[in-house]
Amino acid sequence: MTVTNNHATHLAGPVLVLGTGLLGTSIGLGLRARGIEVLLSDPSPSAQAVAQDIGAGRILAPEDRTAPQLVVVAAPPDVTARVVSEALRRYPDAVVVDIASVKAAVLAELRQDTALSAQDLARYVGTHPMAGREKSGPVAARGELFTSMPWVLCPSDLAAPEAVKTARELAIDLGALVSQMSAEEHDGAVALISHLPQVMSSLLASRLQDTPAHALSLSGQGLRDVTRIAASDPALWVQILGANAPRLVTHLYGVREDLNRLINTLEHPEADGARLDLAQLISEGNAGQARIPGKHGGPPQAFAWLTVLVDDRPGQIARLLTEIGEEGINLEDLRLDHSAGQDVGMVEISVLPGKRQQLVDYLSTHGWKVLQ
Amino acid sequence: MTVTNNHATHLAGPVLVLGTGLLGTSIGLGLRARGIEVLLSDPSPSAQAVAQDIGAGRILAPEDRTAPQLVVVAAPPDVTARVVSEALRRYPDAVVVDIASVKAAVLAELRQDTALSAQDLARYVGTHPMAGREKSGPVAARGELFTSMPWVLCPSDLAAPEAVKTARELAIDLGALVSQMSAEEHDGAVALISHLPQVMSSLLASRLQDTPAHALSLSGQGLRDVTRIAASDPALWVQILGANAPRLVTHLYGVREDLNRLINTLEHPEADGARLDLAQLISEGNAGQARIPGKHGGPPQAFAWLTVLVDDRPGQIARLLTEIGEEGINLEDLRLDHSAGQDVGMVEISVLPGKRQQLVDYLSTHGWKVLQ
Repeated sequence: MTVTNNHATHLAGPVLVLGTGLLGTSIGLGLRARGIEVLLSDPSPSAQAVAQDIGAGRILAPEDRTAPQLVVVAAPPDVTARVVSEALRRYPDAVVVDIASVKAAVLAELRQDTALSAQDLARYVGTHPMAGREKSGPVAARGELFTSMPWVLCPSDLAAPEAVKTARELAIDLGALVSQMSAEEHDGAVALISHLPQVMSSLLASRLQDTPAHALSLSGQGLRDVTRIAASDPALWVQILGANAPRLVTHLYGVREDLNRLINTLEHPEADGARLDLAQLISEGNAGQARIPGKHGGPPQAFAWLTVLVDDRPGQIARLLTEIGEEGINLEDLRLDHSAGQDVGMVEISVLPGKRQQLVDYLSTHGWKVLQ
Repeated sequence: MTVTNNHATHLAGPVLVLGTGLLGTSIGLGLRARGIEVLLSDPSPSAQAVAQDIGAGRILAPEDRTAPQLVVVAAPPDVTARVVSEALRRYPDAVVVDIASVKAAVLAELRQDTALSAQDLARYVGTHPMAGREKSGPVAARGELFTSMPWVLCPSDLAAPEAVKTARELAIDLGALVSQMSAEEHDGAVALISHLPQVMSSLLASRLQDTPAHALSLSGQGLRDVTRIAASDPALWVQILGANAPRLVTHLYGVREDLNRLINTLEHPEADGARLDLAQLISEGNAGQARIPGKHGGPPQAFAWLTVLVDDRPGQIARLLTEIGEEGINLEDLRLDHSAGQDVGMVEISVLPGKRQQLVDYLSTHGWKVLQ
């Protein structure tokens, strides 16, 4: 393996992590792996004990007088502002960041907090590491959780440059990709690119609850893709959707308008303009989908796809990819597509368009069944 | 490669394919590869010439008196019934199938066709091969298009057993997985598992048309998955959605009801019961998503996932999968996840739950960075 994290760290530490759930414990593990001193605290004695046991730092003792460089508030969203406020007052020399996934509400609550001065708020930076797992709790934590994932900084107009720098160093030391925007911009962005997709996937999957089995047996990759995130945790999403309700609901008004237009068209499919309306819906989806950036953060790029038939046995896909690697062609994406009831799989491979014909020729001459 | 198609064919032929677009030409190619005589006809002289040139069969000459065993109507959905009717009358000894993706409307139109007798309709079987491509036209055709894909037979109560047998042999000879249900059942099933996902994906992607670029730069795999099929062809989907409008619209009423409930909840996020309402939406999505069958057609199965960090260079993923194959573990699914702006990728791998720990141990001792 050539993935390394041996570059110098930026934070000096110590770092105090308040809240040892999945994210807090993962932050502790990641910082400890880089040699930074980490203190842990959680209202649950067992949660903080687990976090300490797996190496995420040492439990903050009541008599401990350590002055942290940085306090990371990793509490549940609905108590985040209160914990941030307490931390700002208790550690008057520390920078305090939180990692809640919705930012404007936390900032508004802190601004209204009469116990906090402008000097206190200068040391606060709201942040959102866009990483997570399907599991929760300290046991699921891992130090590499943030590697190559976006981490958004949302400093207020009161935040001191030095505090923003410290928040940025936290994200960088954990291997994340840092970007910066206002809390309002952030919440608007995630309403659209994270919360709305979750809602649409859940609304669709919900329709499948009473579907006859013979209908579901025809399910293809399209249905699987659109419903994958419908498997998300209800407890977490209640807090996220509730905290960003005004921004999300604006997008839902737009969806409802389009949906009503579509329903009206489908109720009168022979009416003048019905075909045009349907074509417009699909075309607008084409246009929106095409704007999603490519996987490497570059402009959206139309990769070329090809499909190869393989046996569904261990080692077949590996052998295929080995031969592709030997030809020096880099995979951009890969998708497995089994069909119900048969143990032949299709591997869909995407490569840069200029490499496609070379790959087709190469694989065909090496005995693979390529479906162009 | 061990994928072979050297089993005996079932159709005797000749088979006449009316319509040499993507599907008709693919059927011709697949049957020719199995040695079956194929005749081609298309209103477009150039389309049928291309189909003949690439080996899908020979063009039916005006003076040709061949009596086909089977006529496959592969015309656009809105002219399918008319072409089926003509074929039943012109070839009184042939079985006639169509392959349009919505079935009840075609059958209803044929039943109302006064030029057709019950004896004629006994020779007709509506079918739907659930295969397609992002490209259209005879140039995009391939004989293996139907391999391992579902092919639904929808015989009416008038269909003769011998005609159904011939339709089934067509699907089997092309390597498809045959199932059988009524036209109404079929149209109800695809409304839910194919047409509704398309609409939801398009409705979501449509919202992205005016998104600021900085918001889109935070896009993750969730958004990409939910919007993938939003890139589909408007011209094709206008016909499909229009032809299945009544069944699709029923599901859209359900979506609209849930959407209105959600909007109402989000407009009053502090109201009693708001959290419960949000949790219910996500939970119902969980329940529906869990009913989608596993990739091998078995019951939905919770595969165990693990994530491995790899360099984004040719051959890395191949090397990883080779080592997994050497350990004798079969991949159930695989997902690549690059992050914007960094050339380190994560490979998410799913295996049977009982194999997970073995694989983690094996990969870890072989120097891979496994994110559990």
